Amino acid sequence: MPLVDIQLIKGVFNDEQKRTMIEKVTNAMVEVEGEAMRGVTWVRVQEIGSGEWAIGGQPLTAEAVKSMRDS
Amino acid sequence: MPLVDIQLIKGVFNDEQKRTMIEKVTNAMVEVEGEAMRGVTWVRVQEIGSGEWAIGGQPLTAEAVKSMRDS
Amino acid sequence: MPLVDIQLIKGVFNDEQKRTMIEKVTNAMVEVEGEAMRGVTWVRVQEIGSGEWAIGGQPLTAEAVKSMRDS
Amino acid sequence: MPLVDIQLIKGVFNDEQKRTMIEKVTNAMVEVEGEAMRGVTWVRVQEIGSGEWAIGGQPLTAEAVKSMRDS
Amino acid sequence: MPLVDIQLIKGVFNDEQKRTMIEKVTNAMVEVEGEAMRGVTWVRVQEIGSGEWAIGGQPLTAEAVKSMRDS
Amino acid sequence: MPLVDIQLIKGVFNDEQKRTMIEKVTNAMVEVEGEAMRGVTWVRVQEIGSGEWAIGGQPLTAEAVKSMRDS
Repeated sequence: MPLVDIQLIKGVFNDEQKRTMIEKVTNAMVEVEGEAMRGVTWVRVQEIGSGEWAIGGQPLTAEAVKSMRDS
Repeated sequence: MPLVDIQLIKGVFNDEQKRTMIEKVTNAMVEVEGEAMRGVTWVRVQEIGSGEWAIGGQPLTAEAVKSMRDS
Repeated sequence: MPLVDIQLIKGVFNDEQKRTMIEKVTNAMVEVEGEAMRGVTWVRVQEIGSGEWAIGGQPLTAEAVKSMRDS
Repeated sequence: MPLVDIQLIKGVFNDEQKRTMIEKVTNAMVEVEGEAMRGVTWVRVQEIGSGEWAIGGQPLTAEAVKSMRDS
Repeated sequence: MPLVDIQLIKGVFNDEQKRTMIEKVTNAMVEVEGEAMRGVTWVRVQEIGSGEWAIGGQPLTAEAVKSMRDS
Repeated sequence: MPLVDIQLIKGVFNDEQKRTMIEKVTNAMVEVEGEAMRGVTWVRVQEIGSGEWAIGGQPLTAEAVKSMRDS
């Protein structure tokens, strides 16, 4: 049953990073819920367009998030 | 008022199938809520990228879902 | 894979009506996607508090929706 | 903490209009919650494909919404 | 068509503040989209339980948000 | 920026288990995105009523999920 939605800004993480997030988040869930529930644990990635996610009214771009990440 | 969100993996269903889902799901809702509420029944389709919807940590691709559907 | 979220105002439909919606919407989906996908078709009901769903700035109450339904 | 999701049909509003929505909606929230919470107020824009958002079973296209807007 | 979901922590804002948010956010949307679309502009409030919304792994309680707001 | 929504059936996990999920999922995200982004990583828990989450049209109850978990 558990469903986990990971919401990101498009263009910040590549396909391999997104796959790794899915694996690690699935494992994190299974550690709490028990191995018997792995098969019904759904994890999804959803991406919001660069510039369409704002904090305090300031749109974040993929570039800005990458700078923060690498700081 | 009712709002129904149909969430699919991109590339599994074509435009005609998605239109048919919208019609059938709207009708299913109206059968319960009454014909008077048809005009305020909203149904939407949202698609997740192939490989970004995982079950038990295994990403589903559009191809894998099509195989399951046609099995 | 398909996931369908039915969003309602709390207090408009009773438990039996919500169960019937789940069944009918599941069947509507399976008619398009094929019987092989019934077991991976998830349908959920989510309810918003009465007065916390507004159209044109006017909050809908459960009472108002019931009047519309029974009109 | 507040998170606001603005959901639109793709192709109806341009980038400048979406930025203006983000600003105005952020300000509307801050007027109620207080200026101290501006920095934790997140606003996002999400777009649904033209034809994948239906009212009463009739899919809305971006063109139809633009006609309504300009009527 | 536009649908706006305002997501809050339960217990921070009272009913009057939530009604004011709905009004102000509806007006903000209508200023951009045009008065002709007021009647199809839906705004909803959804609340997450106190302690079930975390930043950097630290759950926010309604009390903590109120302190921030009043600081 | 990343926002993660963990969706559960009400009554299956207790408060401590939900707190542990939040911590572990936050850590899983930070392992991929980098420590610099911990402070902007939001994780939320949302619960669906028992009986309002169905698989293949069969509503899951909290009891059924607990049996599966403990099997």
